[in-house]
This record gives sequence, structure tokens and C-alpha cells, in this order.
Amino acid sequence: MRIALLGGTGDVGEGLALRWAYHSDHDVVIGSRDPDDAHDAADRYERAVADHGRERKITGFENTMAADRAEVVVLCVPPYHVADTVESIEGSLDDGDVLVTPAAGMKRDDDGFHYHPPSAGSVTALVADAAPDGVPVVGAFHSLAAGRLADLDAELGVDTLVIGDDADAKSRVAGLAEDIDGLRALDAGGLANAPEVESLTPLLVNVARENDGLGDLGVSFR
Amino acid sequence: MRIALLGGTGDVGEGLALRWAYHSDHDVVIGSRDPDDAHDAADRYERAVADHGRERKITGFENTMAADRAEVVVLCVPPYHVADTVESIEGSLDDGDVLVTPAAGMKRDDDGFHYHPPSAGSVTALVADAAPDGVPVVGAFHSLAAGRLADLDAELGVDTLVIGDDADAKSRVAGLAEDIDGLRALDAGGLANAPEVESLTPLLVNVARENDGLGDLGVSFR
Repeated sequence: MRIALLGGTGDVGEGLALRWAYHSDHDVVIGSRDPDDAHDAADRYERAVADHGRERKITGFENTMAADRAEVVVLCVPPYHVADTVESIEGSLDDGDVLVTPAAGMKRDDDGFHYHPPSAGSVTALVADAAPDGVPVVGAFHSLAAGRLADLDAELGVDTLVIGDDADAKSRVAGLAEDIDGLRALDAGGLANAPEVESLTPLLVNVARENDGLGDLGVSFR
Repeated sequence: MRIALLGGTGDVGEGLALRWAYHSDHDVVIGSRDPDDAHDAADRYERAVADHGRERKITGFENTMAADRAEVVVLCVPPYHVADTVESIEGSLDDGDVLVTPAAGMKRDDDGFHYHPPSAGSVTALVADAAPDGVPVVGAFHSLAAGRLADLDAELGVDTLVIGDDADAKSRVAGLAEDIDGLRALDAGGLANAPEVESLTPLLVNVARENDGLGDLGVSFR
């Protein structure tokens, strides 16, 4: 499978790129608004994976070119850029391609981070509203700490929740998730269940912030 | 410490009562609107704990009498009864007593369970608004499955998140939580962070519902 990580120069994109390149044989394509940034990041990730003993080719392109090359497109962009990004790549998406969104809307105050969904109800719903017909949307990877993903020496041993209304697309993304060592994918139901899943992101930040010795947290359902 | 479980005849009350009676030396008091129900439940719980080899005295009283006897009062009532219950026991609470709320507002539709907080913003905030001055409120035990708690043969190995604005009260409740074998208490910050914590309840129900072989789920932060 070819996976494009749009906004793949950011921390979540880096973590997922390194993990898929290192643990699986999927082709990893980095997308960015600036093709030079995408290319530089791809080179950097290639070297990081090579340092851990695997020679993998990772490529980098401007977002629309990256999306054009892939069957699964992960939107590793901030929530406020999600709709624009989907619009900009619309022409690059084929029927049956899958859009994946790991983003959660948050606001911060003195108490901590709080779930702050867009008016669509969730970031996942926002992406689903923006996606062209025939391109299913799956929410996943919300509860993974980017720093831990990007550290190939760090064990995961955590779960990710997968949400969406298209069972085949969800199962494809769950499979990709489980290709990463130490990651288990669990089904959390349809798009309507996205707010509770996206709420995990601020929750994990708050728990890490309030407890000494905990950082880069994930969750395990047991 | 003496702990009153109001609405202690319900499933969450039963689970916490059995666990504290079995794993700790705290005095467990069951409260109910009907004193006969409270008494019957207390007898039943005593027998369940005795069946597991511990002779403990568990008492049962009408809610106000139960609250009057305890330093920590856990509101094991449905969210829509929480404010009424706090009002009804106001005269039984002394300065420094701690009110604990494990409830989360939920609504259900065809897709699953959804977080549905009261207008106060969270059930924890609702309790804090209703509590008399000098009685701190702590949210805890939202992510524990009642059935698993009530099965003394079931291992826990999960976490509970503790929220509140009074550090001493929070630490007291965290201590009580950790007196239960296999339960770790983590701080999730102040009352303002309650919605993300309470959202775990519908999330856990949805995940259990969507994945074969998973039930009575808890979470471990790792």
C-alpha cells in the first residue's frame, strides 16, 4: 500500500512515517505545501530509519502530488487547515482512496487542554463533509504521542481507536495501524462517535501534565 | 476512613462497596432512599465479601443517615439525581467531608453512546455547584466497569482519573482508590478538565460494544 502523510513534516507525520517505514513494507510518501520541505523531511526520515538498520526509500512531494500517488492519505495537518487541505487535494483523490484524520480540536487555558470541536461536531465530521463522494473518511491515531512514535527505540504497547461509517475503509486503516509493532487497533464505531475519541487527545495531555514521570502517554483498553 | 456510597444499591455502588470492603479496612456504609433497600444491599455485600474469605461489617441506611456517618461520600446515583441528592444530604455534610462523583451524562442513539453533559458543563461541575461551602468535590471512578468491580475474582490492572480543585481532597480520594488492588489513581487536573474525563464513560461503552471479546473495559495510561 502507498500511504501519503500530508503535513508530513510535522511531529505526527514524522512519527507515523518513521513507524510505517520501519515496521512495514508500505511505501511512505511525505506531503507538504512546500515540496522542498517535503523532500528534506523524507531524506531525514530515511536516515533515521537507516540508523535503525532498515534501508527504505521515502519520497517527498507537494501535498497534491503526494496525495495523487497514494491510496491512503493521512491528514497530519492542524485542525484549522484540515478543510482547506482536503479541498486542495480533491482532484488527486480517486474513488476508493481513503482519507485518514488523526486531528482533534483543542483549546488551552490555565487548567489544561479542552476538547473544542469545530461546528461540524468533530474534526472527523469536518473531513467527511469536505471529502469528495466515493472517498471514505476514517478517524484514527488520536491517542498516540508524536514524540513516542518518532522514537523508534520506544515501545508502544498501546491502542488506537478507529472510527468511520465505511467498514471496509475502517478495516483497511486498522490493518495499517496494526502493521506498526505494539499498536492494536480497536473499533470505536461510526463517525457520530468521533467526539469521545478525539477527546482523548486533550485528556492525555492533561494527564501527562499533572503526573510526574508520565509523558508521551498512550492508552490501553483492558 | 468511613465511606458512604449513596445510591449504593446500584451497580457502581455495589462494585466500589465490595472492593473497599474486600481490599481495605475502611468502613463501608451503603445509602439508599429506602433504608430497607440499603440494609438488604449491605447484607448481600457482606456475604459476597465473606464468600471471598473476609469477614467485614457493612451497614446500610437512608442516604442522609449514611452521609452523616461518613467523611467521604460517593454519589453513585444517576446524573439526573445528582443535584437533588446533594441537596437532600446538605445537612449531613460537615466541613472537610469530601463529595465524590463517578457519574457521566450520556445519551444513546443508533450509533452508540455520546457524552451529554448537563448545562453546568460536566456532572462534576454540577455537583460542585450544588455542594455546600467547605465541602470539596472530586470526580473519580468514571472509567471503571461496574460489573468488573463487583466481581472480586476479576483483576483490575487499570487506572482511574481524579479531578478537582481541592488538592487535599483529591489526594484523599486518590489514596482511597489505590487502596483497591490493581487500581492506580492519576491526577487529571482541576474541575475544568472534567468533560474529557467523563467522556471516557461513553467511549468505553462504545469500544466494548464494537469489538468482539471486549467487555467491562477499563483504561490504562502508559
